[in-house]
Amino acid sequence: MPVTVFFAAGPANWDEYRDPLNAAFAAAGLDVEMADAAPDPEAVDYIVFAPGGIIEDFGPYVNCKAVLNLWAGVERLVINTTLTQPLARMVDWGLTEGMVEYVTGHVLRHHLGMDAHIHGQDGVWRNSVLPPLARERPVAILGLGELGQASARALAGLNFPVMGWSRSPKEIDGIACHSGEDGLVHVLSHAEIVVLLLPLTEDTRDLLNAERLALMPRGAVIINPGRGPLIDDTALLAALDAGRIGHATLDVFRTEPLPPDHPFWAHPKVTVTPHIAADTRPSSSSHVIAENICRGEAGEPFLHLVDRSRGY
Amino acid sequence: MPVTVFFAAGPANWDEYRDPLNAAFAAAGLDVEMADAAPDPEAVDYIVFAPGGIIEDFGPYVNCKAVLNLWAGVERLVINTTLTQPLARMVDWGLTEGMVEYVTGHVLRHHLGMDAHIHGQDGVWRNSVLPPLARERPVAILGLGELGQASARALAGLNFPVMGWSRSPKEIDGIACHSGEDGLVHVLSHAEIVVLLLPLTEDTRDLLNAERLALMPRGAVIINPGRGPLIDDTALLAALDAGRIGHATLDVFRTEPLPPDHPFWAHPKVTVTPHIAADTRPSSSSHVIAENICRGEAGEPFLHLVDRSRGY
Repeated sequence: MPVTVFFAAGPANWDEYRDPLNAAFAAAGLDVEMADAAPDPEAVDYIVFAPGGIIEDFGPYVNCKAVLNLWAGVERLVINTTLTQPLARMVDWGLTEGMVEYVTGHVLRHHLGMDAHIHGQDGVWRNSVLPPLARERPVAILGLGELGQASARALAGLNFPVMGWSRSPKEIDGIACHSGEDGLVHVLSHAEIVVLLLPLTEDTRDLLNAERLALMPRGAVIINPGRGPLIDDTALLAALDAGRIGHATLDVFRTEPLPPDHPFWAHPKVTVTPHIAADTRPSSSSHVIAENICRGEAGEPFLHLVDRSRGY
Repeated sequence: MPVTVFFAAGPANWDEYRDPLNAAFAAAGLDVEMADAAPDPEAVDYIVFAPGGIIEDFGPYVNCKAVLNLWAGVERLVINTTLTQPLARMVDWGLTEGMVEYVTGHVLRHHLGMDAHIHGQDGVWRNSVLPPLARERPVAILGLGELGQASARALAGLNFPVMGWSRSPKEIDGIACHSGEDGLVHVLSHAEIVVLLLPLTEDTRDLLNAERLALMPRGAVIINPGRGPLIDDTALLAALDAGRIGHATLDVFRTEPLPPDHPFWAHPKVTVTPHIAADTRPSSSSHVIAENICRGEAGEPFLHLVDRSRGY
C-alpha cells in the first residue's frame, strides 16, 4: 500500500518541489502517493509542511507519523499546540553550504574592508591601510547548531580565530567554545565580527540588546543571517549612530520583506540582504524528506527531530 | 665576526623593517650588523633589496652571498645583468595568507553577487534570484606557484570546483590541473571566475588578450591580484563593454598608482583595488630573511631562489 504524503506547503512550493520530491521518493525505493490537497486527514501518513495557512489544526491528522518541515526555522510551529506529531526541521546540505558561503563571504568582505573599494572608485589610490591577517581578527559565531558549526569550521579553515557561543556547553575542534551568560559576555567583548546563527526562542529574543551591544569592541561588525528578532533594532541603530558598532549586514528582519521606509535601508552602516543567506534547495532537501519517510516506514528514529521543550 | 647586511630598500622600508629584522636576527641567533648605507661594497655579506634606485649596479658587491628581495615579484631584477649573486624572492607566509584572503573574499563576493546588495540599498526586496552553490560554480586559478596553490586549496575547501593552469604540468590534490596552450583554452572556456596569479614573463605578458577573453563564458568574472601586464587592458575594456566579461576586479596595473583618468576607475564593471591583495608583512618576512642568512652562513641552499632562465 502506498505511503500517503500531504504536501501542505502551498502552490508555489508545490510547483517547485513536486518533481524533485517524486524523484527522491523513487530513488529511495518508496511507493508514495503525494498530493497538495488532503481529502481525508486520517489517511495522511506524512505532512510536508511550510507556513502559510494550509494547516492550522494538526488534530485531524491522527495517523500522521511525522510533520516534515520544508525549512529550518520552526518557531511558528512549536507554539501550535495542535501539533503533537513528531516534527522534523529541514537540515539540508544545500542550505548549510549556502549559509557557509554567505557567512564566509560577508566575514571576508568586512575583514578586508571591501566596501571602501566597491564604493570608492573615484581615482584616489588608497593603499596605506592594510587589513590585519585573518589570524589577527577574532570572529564569533553565536549559535552552534548545524549552520553555526559549519560556518565556524569554514572560518577557522581560513585562519580566523573563531569563538563559538551556545546556550549549552559544546566542544568543537579548533573553535573556542563558550556558553552561558558569562560566556556570552566574554565572546561579545572580544569579537570584531559577530555572526548570529541562533534559533529564535524566548531566551534568544532581543539577545543583542543595548547592554550587550555595549560590550562589543568599538567598530565591531554584526552579521545576522539567523533570525530578525535576535537583535533589538532600536538599540542597534543607536549603537551604529554612536559609532560603537561599525556595520551591520542583516539578512533577516522582524517584518519581511523589510518595509521600504525602514531606517535599515537608508542607513550607511547597514547592508540589507533579502533573506537569501540560506534557502532550502529543492533537489537536496527532497532527499532529506525521502530519507525521513524511509526511516518512519522502517520504524527508525527521524532525522532532525525538534525538541519542543527547547523550541528548536 | 658579525654578518654585514646592507638594507638597500629605501628609507620608508627601513623605518618599517629595521626593528622586525633585528628581532628576527636575534631570534635566529645571528650576529648581524645591518645598515641602510654601505660605505664599502666589498664588506657586504647580504643585500636586503627592494626596487627604488638604491642599487642599480650589483657588480661592486663581490663578496655578497645573496640578494634577498623584500617582495615576491622579481621581474625588474632578473633583467639586471649586473646581478650575478644568488637571488631569493620573498615567499612570506603573511603575504600568502593575505593573498588567499583577498582571492577567497573577492571570489565569494562575485559568486554571491554581493555588489547588488552593497549598492542596492533602495528599499526594494530582491530575493528572487538565488546564486548557485559554490559546488556549481567553476573557478580557475592561472598560476600554481605558492600563492596560486594556496588560493586554489582555500577555494576547493569551500566546495568550488577549482581548475588550475600553469606553464609546466603540475599535480595538486583536489585541483583539476591543466597546462600548455590547450590547457589554457580548456580552463578559460569553462571557468566562471578566473583568478590571475601568474608571474610576469615574456610568455605571460598580455596572456588575457582579445582572443583568449573571447573564450570565456558570457558574464565571467576576472580577478587580477597578480601582475598588471598579464591583461591587455584595451581588450578587457572592449569585452566588458560588449557584456562578454561580467566584471573585473583588478589589484595590479601597468602604471601604479593607476592614473586618476584611467578608464578602469570610472567603469561600472571594474573594481580597482590599490595593490593591496598581498603585501609583505614585516614581522613574518623578517623571519624568512633571517632564515636565509642562517642558511647562507651554514652553506645550505637558500630558500626561494630565483631561476633566472624562467624569470621567477
